Amino acid sequence: MMKTDSDYMQLALELAASAKGNTNPNPCVGAVLVKDGVIVGTGLHRKAGEPHAEVHAFNMAGEHAKGATLYVTLEPCSHYGKTPPCANLVKESGVSRVVVATMDPNPSVAGRGISLLRAAGIEVEVGLLEQEARKLNERFIHNMVANRPFVISKFAMTMDGKIATHNGHSKWITSEEARLQVHKLRHEMDGILVGVGTVLADNPSLTTRLPHREGENPIRIILDSELKTPLNANVVNTAVAQTIIVTSDEVDEAKVNRLTEKGVQILTVSKTEQGLNLEEMLDELYEIGITDILVEGGAEVNGSFLRAGLINKVLVFMAPKLIGGRNSKTPFAGMNIDSIEDGLQLEFDSIEQVGPDLCITAYPAVEIV
Amino acid sequence: MMKTDSDYMQLALELAASAKGNTNPNPCVGAVLVKDGVIVGTGLHRKAGEPHAEVHAFNMAGEHAKGATLYVTLEPCSHYGKTPPCANLVKESGVSRVVVATMDPNPSVAGRGISLLRAAGIEVEVGLLEQEARKLNERFIHNMVANRPFVISKFAMTMDGKIATHNGHSKWITSEEARLQVHKLRHEMDGILVGVGTVLADNPSLTTRLPHREGENPIRIILDSELKTPLNANVVNTAVAQTIIVTSDEVDEAKVNRLTEKGVQILTVSKTEQGLNLEEMLDELYEIGITDILVEGGAEVNGSFLRAGLINKVLVFMAPKLIGGRNSKTPFAGMNIDSIEDGLQLEFDSIEQVGPDLCITAYPAVEIV
Repeated sequence: MMKTDSDYMQLALELAASAKGNTNPNPCVGAVLVKDGVIVGTGLHRKAGEPHAEVHAFNMAGEHAKGATLYVTLEPCSHYGKTPPCANLVKESGVSRVVVATMDPNPSVAGRGISLLRAAGIEVEVGLLEQEARKLNERFIHNMVANRPFVISKFAMTMDGKIATHNGHSKWITSEEARLQVHKLRHEMDGILVGVGTVLADNPSLTTRLPHREGENPIRIILDSELKTPLNANVVNTAVAQTIIVTSDEVDEAKVNRLTEKGVQILTVSKTEQGLNLEEMLDELYEIGITDILVEGGAEVNGSFLRAGLINKVLVFMAPKLIGGRNSKTPFAGMNIDSIEDGLQLEFDSIEQVGPDLCITAYPAVEIV
Repeated sequence: MMKTDSDYMQLALELAASAKGNTNPNPCVGAVLVKDGVIVGTGLHRKAGEPHAEVHAFNMAGEHAKGATLYVTLEPCSHYGKTPPCANLVKESGVSRVVVATMDPNPSVAGRGISLLRAAGIEVEVGLLEQEARKLNERFIHNMVANRPFVISKFAMTMDGKIATHNGHSKWITSEEARLQVHKLRHEMDGILVGVGTVLADNPSLTTRLPHREGENPIRIILDSELKTPLNANVVNTAVAQTIIVTSDEVDEAKVNRLTEKGVQILTVSKTEQGLNLEEMLDELYEIGITDILVEGGAEVNGSFLRAGLINKVLVFMAPKLIGGRNSKTPFAGMNIDSIEDGLQLEFDSIEQVGPDLCITAYPAVEIV
């Protein structure tokens, strides 16, 4: 059957998506070169520092690139970074047509790669499967536009909105299948964040545990304004994974020293009326290269991110259970609001069955930037 | 295209389902008669007191029934009720084959209609699309087996499991589309139940409001152990719909009289350590012909039904909102449990998008009886 532009772009998107989580801070990009209905080149960006998707595709195509069509999921870059600009490569390759899913999200560069190609007489189309391409790179787009890490708020709850019983018992709300999915997600993330309350209550290790391969551990970020993290907590074991404790500059220097001796990094931020300044923290974390963060609670930390308007995506695993209980815990606490309208309006995005549980994702109803 | 047995049974199920909510206390039943690949008779049970599905189908088919196949969603009845037994009618009709989706759920009669037909030399097959047929009549099956009303626990919550802000504000968690769906559900139910706390807080009328036709109002059932329902509450206006207040026998007779003068019925039940005896209440309500009840909260009432193990189906409307708040309300309260395993294990059944919201249904993981 005759393949369409959409088919080839779909393939390019699948190639790109296969590296999701490995390319940070770079975007995921896939490229497909087609000549006379035959795929002559394919490529994807595997990892920061390695060649861009277009380079691989052109290497494979060689002379076949002349007169071909390039399908690429993101506008070819026009600046010198770790690699020379791809737009030049495309220009010199002899392709006659370029189909781009979405423009470079960085407002100061968006469109330059495309202009460069058009100026060279190449036919360029932009916007095919754009929504899919933007979703695939939602993290990168947010990074470019907001200059901050992309924040995913993740929690597991029962059908009646409980994350634990009154005494904190929560093993296990969700199924093994759902927990495995969380570990796959951790593998893709740069950072994972919890409050010290969670450290004290559950002593989690916050590492990535995958059954058949080694998982990459995100950097563990602990919100701990009074440095209550015990020296023997699992998150202090920095032989396993890196740990950053975020605190205020009012804390005892001796405590700081004891933690830094263990290899823990201390990040101090100012305090606001609501506690640690989360905007400042995100700015600092982005500075040191953390492009996305999985916020795993507890309820007060979740509430703080909600009130500060810093949640970019919500991911809930809902278990088919009812537990009830006047004092059972719910996923978001923090400051009370008086009216439903003062809550955060979202839009549901996907619902997936994971074992017996549901995995539901949503985005803030404003545009994802 | 050649139609299969499944196609005809599917049609019979659709005919049956069209009367859902109108046949109480009877089941929904559909029947299709097919001869030589042509549908010669169709029928459904429209309402208690009216003819059974088979009667309509045979009336339509007339002489064409001879040698035909009867597809019927429920085993033909074998006893004299308001109408003569359908099994006799089927026997005398001359059909050569009968396909039944599911047996009569009443354990004391199940199978008798089928035996009667087989004894008459008619080929009978049982179990085609049985799951669909049992689901369609889940209410009736529960009635027959448990001798109690079928209880649906319904609530609307945000994505973080909240039903109201700390001060009780809940207008509106869910969309107009979701609220309309609730009114359609009320139209199908015999009873709707809330606690007096909900009456005092929200003064709901608990009636069925449909846009283009008159909705049938369920009987309003108020759990009110101390008779705190105000005489001017909307639920006391019995000109609109019937109201039963469930209370204990310890209450002031003068209060009882003031309410009965308004047309409210008073049902007294014993008290347990957890409050009003809900099992006793359900038995009494079933006695007076209430076959299903929509429990609409609040949290304490929901918690009581949960602890008593009296929930047969759970229906949540989830809104794409996060509201958080330490003291926001959640859908199930009541007695605390210590461990997740002591909760009620469910199985998700369906997920549907309703406007911007999700409608998720689940059943207790034990068999639906």
